[in-house]
Amino acid sequence: MSAPKKVVLAYSGGLDTSIILKWLQTEYGCEVVTFTADLGQGEELDPARKKAELLGIKPENIHIEDVREEFVRDFVFPMFRANALYEGLYLLGTSIARPLISKRLVEIAEMTGADAVAHGATGKGNDQVRFELSAYALNPHIKVIAPWREWDLTSRTKLLEFAEANQIPIAKDKRGEAPFSVDANLLHTSSEGKVLENPAEEAPEYVLQRITRPEDAPDTPEFVEITFEKGDAVAINGAAMSPATILTKLNELGGKHGVGILDLVENRFVGMKSRGVYETPGGTILLEAHRGIEQITLDAGAGHLKDSIMPRYAELIYNGFWFSPEREMLQALIDKSQEHVSGTVRVKLYKGSARTVARRSDHSLYSEKHVTFEEDAGAYDQKDAAGFIRLNALRLKLIATRNERVKG
Amino acid sequence: MSAPKKVVLAYSGGLDTSIILKWLQTEYGCEVVTFTADLGQGEELDPARKKAELLGIKPENIHIEDVREEFVRDFVFPMFRANALYEGLYLLGTSIARPLISKRLVEIAEMTGADAVAHGATGKGNDQVRFELSAYALNPHIKVIAPWREWDLTSRTKLLEFAEANQIPIAKDKRGEAPFSVDANLLHTSSEGKVLENPAEEAPEYVLQRITRPEDAPDTPEFVEITFEKGDAVAINGAAMSPATILTKLNELGGKHGVGILDLVENRFVGMKSRGVYETPGGTILLEAHRGIEQITLDAGAGHLKDSIMPRYAELIYNGFWFSPEREMLQALIDKSQEHVSGTVRVKLYKGSARTVARRSDHSLYSEKHVTFEEDAGAYDQKDAAGFIRLNALRLKLIATRNERVKG
Amino acid sequence: MSAPKKVVLAYSGGLDTSIILKWLQTEYGCEVVTFTADLGQGEELDPARKKAELLGIKPENIHIEDVREEFVRDFVFPMFRANALYEGLYLLGTSIARPLISKRLVEIAEMTGADAVAHGATGKGNDQVRFELSAYALNPHIKVIAPWREWDLTSRTKLLEFAEANQIPIAKDKRGEAPFSVDANLLHTSSEGKVLENPAEEAPEYVLQRITRPEDAPDTPEFVEITFEKGDAVAINGAAMSPATILTKLNELGGKHGVGILDLVENRFVGMKSRGVYETPGGTILLEAHRGIEQITLDAGAGHLKDSIMPRYAELIYNGFWFSPEREMLQALIDKSQEHVSGTVRVKLYKGSARTVARRSDHSLYSEKHVTFEEDAGAYDQKDAAGFIRLNALRLKLIATRNERVKG
Amino acid sequence: MSAPKKVVLAYSGGLDTSIILKWLQTEYGCEVVTFTADLGQGEELDPARKKAELLGIKPENIHIEDVREEFVRDFVFPMFRANALYEGLYLLGTSIARPLISKRLVEIAEMTGADAVAHGATGKGNDQVRFELSAYALNPHIKVIAPWREWDLTSRTKLLEFAEANQIPIAKDKRGEAPFSVDANLLHTSSEGKVLENPAEEAPEYVLQRITRPEDAPDTPEFVEITFEKGDAVAINGAAMSPATILTKLNELGGKHGVGILDLVENRFVGMKSRGVYETPGGTILLEAHRGIEQITLDAGAGHLKDSIMPRYAELIYNGFWFSPEREMLQALIDKSQEHVSGTVRVKLYKGSARTVARRSDHSLYSEKHVTFEEDAGAYDQKDAAGFIRLNALRLKLIATRNERVKG
Repeated sequence: MSAPKKVVLAYSGGLDTSIILKWLQTEYGCEVVTFTADLGQGEELDPARKKAELLGIKPENIHIEDVREEFVRDFVFPMFRANALYEGLYLLGTSIARPLISKRLVEIAEMTGADAVAHGATGKGNDQVRFELSAYALNPHIKVIAPWREWDLTSRTKLLEFAEANQIPIAKDKRGEAPFSVDANLLHTSSEGKVLENPAEEAPEYVLQRITRPEDAPDTPEFVEITFEKGDAVAINGAAMSPATILTKLNELGGKHGVGILDLVENRFVGMKSRGVYETPGGTILLEAHRGIEQITLDAGAGHLKDSIMPRYAELIYNGFWFSPEREMLQALIDKSQEHVSGTVRVKLYKGSARTVARRSDHSLYSEKHVTFEEDAGAYDQKDAAGFIRLNALRLKLIATRNERVKG
Repeated sequence: MSAPKKVVLAYSGGLDTSIILKWLQTEYGCEVVTFTADLGQGEELDPARKKAELLGIKPENIHIEDVREEFVRDFVFPMFRANALYEGLYLLGTSIARPLISKRLVEIAEMTGADAVAHGATGKGNDQVRFELSAYALNPHIKVIAPWREWDLTSRTKLLEFAEANQIPIAKDKRGEAPFSVDANLLHTSSEGKVLENPAEEAPEYVLQRITRPEDAPDTPEFVEITFEKGDAVAINGAAMSPATILTKLNELGGKHGVGILDLVENRFVGMKSRGVYETPGGTILLEAHRGIEQITLDAGAGHLKDSIMPRYAELIYNGFWFSPEREMLQALIDKSQEHVSGTVRVKLYKGSARTVARRSDHSLYSEKHVTFEEDAGAYDQKDAAGFIRLNALRLKLIATRNERVKG
Repeated sequence: MSAPKKVVLAYSGGLDTSIILKWLQTEYGCEVVTFTADLGQGEELDPARKKAELLGIKPENIHIEDVREEFVRDFVFPMFRANALYEGLYLLGTSIARPLISKRLVEIAEMTGADAVAHGATGKGNDQVRFELSAYALNPHIKVIAPWREWDLTSRTKLLEFAEANQIPIAKDKRGEAPFSVDANLLHTSSEGKVLENPAEEAPEYVLQRITRPEDAPDTPEFVEITFEKGDAVAINGAAMSPATILTKLNELGGKHGVGILDLVENRFVGMKSRGVYETPGGTILLEAHRGIEQITLDAGAGHLKDSIMPRYAELIYNGFWFSPEREMLQALIDKSQEHVSGTVRVKLYKGSARTVARRSDHSLYSEKHVTFEEDAGAYDQKDAAGFIRLNALRLKLIATRNERVKG
Repeated sequence: MSAPKKVVLAYSGGLDTSIILKWLQTEYGCEVVTFTADLGQGEELDPARKKAELLGIKPENIHIEDVREEFVRDFVFPMFRANALYEGLYLLGTSIARPLISKRLVEIAEMTGADAVAHGATGKGNDQVRFELSAYALNPHIKVIAPWREWDLTSRTKLLEFAEANQIPIAKDKRGEAPFSVDANLLHTSSEGKVLENPAEEAPEYVLQRITRPEDAPDTPEFVEITFEKGDAVAINGAAMSPATILTKLNELGGKHGVGILDLVENRFVGMKSRGVYETPGGTILLEAHRGIEQITLDAGAGHLKDSIMPRYAELIYNGFWFSPEREMLQALIDKSQEHVSGTVRVKLYKGSARTVARRSDHSLYSEKHVTFEEDAGAYDQKDAAGFIRLNALRLKLIATRNERVKG
């Protein structure tokens, strides 16, 4: 790979990506363009602009964008249509944000004539894979620079020395090492590393960033009604809202009631296990509600097919294959199923749990007429069940007969 | 089908199966053998014996058995190795008990020279299917009688008239209709029908049979440690226990802390939707803990394969195909995966939720040496990730290049 | 089910459906509408009209249609996009025709105000299921009449007596029983029953209806080039043709060269096994060619996902669930994959086999630059493979290390 | 990775691995142990011994073994139980041999105190992955050396210069470059590269190594009967034979009749497509026959489950994951299914095709009594089908009713 001339850097404004910024200038002598996204991580973006300017980035090379609506509408919601859970439990909060960032990095590169993009993910994690697979899928000619895999700043001390040598301001609280590493966006906050590295020890409570400890949550349950149209949430308690507003609102509710904490040891795509604490307050409610509305609007054929492909879909997103033919094929299947997934679900929030308690829909397939214990006026002939069972049993009987004969 | 001469009836001692008992005698003039199982449903079995005698069953034709250990060891535990959830949420508490009952019915039939078995499930539900598929799979010559699909006792009034006409004692509280229908065993209690038939209305709280309302659960969390060997729970808080004892103990803990309530609309095998409230206190903890121990003892290859076949496995059990080649094939796959699923998981119980907070195992695949944010002494070469990503990206780049060319 | 007033009958003009026609009139006293479709079965339809008239059907109640183009375009081609094979071998020639017939039956019923449809499939086979599931899916209010399951004409003798008693003309060669039963359409001819019922005996050669015995096929191979656009065949040897014309042409070629004979024992949906001889000359070539074009235009992600869902897709069609949400979901996935499945495949036909020997496409993902054994000018860095392998191996090494440790 | 001290090399005796042998001695100054296996590739092994000695390998360091029986018994046959086909067509002839070679390399390393193994696969192909994943899975401490990824002998000229400089004898016909590259073992011969690199051009006929051109095959069909026990072939035409003998015999038959030629463009695990011509004469017959015996001995539940996991199983073997938990889990599932896969299949071989024409088994599930078109003496009640269909249709009717209502 020839040296990059102009690089678009995913820039948070923090110490690490500031060091990367400087390192790119120093190492490659290249022009740096910064991209800072508001994904709902809950941080001001103005300081990122100021810091980029301070580090010598030209104003026209500083790109700061609020992508929250795009994030929820085009990434989070399509994923929730699938009820995606990685390894049975993880709502993919970090995984789903990476392809959006890569998409914008590549678009800005094309817009500004840059030949490379750069990110601050390490060589041990999943994020490097997600950033890079997305970038290559969107632009096969782009160069991707992953400084953590390249440089020799392999210790905290060396990083701080580099920062000082290059006049990068260091916040006081960054002198010492953070007790764990955090990633956040509108869907979730993840914490991992350091004090969390021993999965046999309970995570300290101070790890929680945005969810109230269930013990400290209100003593009274709260109910929320979520309305769906074609699989996507469109209203809360009857009030229509934009996608990002809905997720924000659900985050508030979930956070307040202690909903959405997960302590997980998971399998990274690069082959090792890691332990993380994930907080997904709104997402946890949304998944519960989406399952609730599907219960009455999807039949068994559609629902079971969705369930059977879900693990593969979740794995693809986790592994960084959002922009891949197979993810798009699965999405087509999932989206096809959502045509009638419309209606309203009532969820009870209480000290750490979110449970569907009621659901209604004009598109409901639930037929009280059929299921009733009462007289059903001929809707269902119980005698049909006899034939149904006998034909389902036929092959089992033939097997049993064969086995008798063989053992004979 | 020729008329049965001797029938083994799954007999609970309740009004409905007593009516069936009498009806079999009346309708077919056949000898009736009763089988009453203690599956942990929490009812005394002595009254069932007395009632059978009262209805004229010869003592040697009355079979009462405690099958709790067999139930948990040979049915519940194998199923939990798979993390089985039907439609994403249901722990299959009713489904998994039916094949055991059928197995004993068939065995008693063979022992007593009976040519038929009978059950009290209706023609609308799943249980008829589960009873009958199991019976036919185990004995292809057996006759199965399902009185609910045959008789004309199609209303409460007619049933009571039949009971009275045949001197079947009717408990006072059975004169009126129950507000909902209940099934229970050591794994769960299900409630459905009547007051629960409208899924848009929240279930009344009096439906709960064995789980404390989360709001009434203790204000202090409790922690429980569950030890697994080859995928099965073998000890609680360090004390070794038999399978049924473990589940009983977990039921107490879960019930106390409000854990394991599910309000579900599900798809029955016979084609209609039904709504149930399920209480699975111990099973909910067990699933959480089993997932917890698998997190550190299964690698991604094994874990993801298990996840991908789980929905099919759960569907088979739900639909009544426990005794089928495909369930046994899936079980072989699952059991093979559990060889190293040994270790201890710590679960926090609090007002309705059960969350894994720590896990440890001699068989752990978690490698702090590899995952650490600190210096890893060469355990992992971050540069390997570059090649890993580039080859994973190669096909995506070839696609992107093709697409450019074609759009040209 | 109340008695039908007006029935649309799938009418072939043959003896059996003529008897059904008369039986419907006799049994239900209902008006009969006939529907006779040209699906490419290779029979004149005029006699069917005459016979219907002879049996008293009013001219306006006789519907005869050439549906060959619709059949191939909307049923056969979508199915071939999936490379569908039931039980690894069967090209689903009968299965795929049934939903089209049901669709037209229901449409004609709606058009003519009929309240029922009727078909001539027996109670042992798959076709009854396919006809009826399709009909119910398209019109939940329709009645379906399956005379073979209802009447007492349970022997050849009784059928002939009924025919004679009702002045139904009996062709001379129908007096005796056919040595096997045949179904045909543009995609295939199937033979089953009677002389074929023992799967341990080779099928007699006279069973073949449309394919030359390989031994009698030309001694010189013939090559055919098939051009695809978005997964569908559009031209043969460079000449653009309509879907039905393409299949007709491929049938001629395959038939001439002995291609497409299958002797199969399969599992029917109703639980028993049956043995059939299938002749699918054009379809066999088409499948081979479609696989050939996918080889260069689909990447591994898309191709393997398609392969993994194919058995389920084929099973759905075989079982009669063409008009079901899950088939439509899978179709959405499959169709999404075909956007670039365009290009030309060269197939060699010779004495019973059809083999792809070359393929080319503007949409090709094959990169000679990457794969070459020669100098590749940096297209691929072989060192990348080292990292790729090491990270793929990491979990395996961790397992091996664990196993060493545990075994001590 | 520290330098290896003693290396076990997979040594064919050919020019390339002789150069590798010398290069290992030169580059690392390490002791070299050679392993040459008779996998049925059809070459004398004596010359390999002589050449190794000539290149200075000590006699005790030269390991030559006939592993044909182990190859077929423990690798080929287990794979054929699954009917494994990669990308629908490829019988995995090369893929399945690699894990065995790696297993012996690692075992010999452990036996001889070597710390490394080496192979002659290039950095572009699948074989490097297969060799190395297997080696790491079997011994996590082993070093693997892949000279083609390391050295600078990047052209034919440089290789020959190195050979000459190191007194490696060069056969006359190796001076020029081979027109394509060949790999062979008892299961298959593959050819790729060079003259085959353009998939739009038909492969020249001289590529075929062991299969007669169909045009040159006998004009008379030949029939062969293969007997299976628990899924494995045990006899041919009634004569019991060892696994390797059976495959050898089938290779003769298939080769004679032109059976088993495949021209394929496939997706390599490393991300690129390649084109190969595969000759698998015996394997093609064996697959056909195994499917034939499964047709009568497996029920739909077992057979369809096997079909649904087969693509994943084949992909694992292709990608080199033979020694992985997930392959072993799938194998457990597959093996479980084969308990009754016993019986005899008759296959017709003729000018390029192998077709099952008859099959019989004491374990057969085929029931002529059920399927017959004749009177079945009550084995099957056709009326059962009505209930079977109505309950299968119920959800479809509920969907249709819902759709009507919604469209209103």
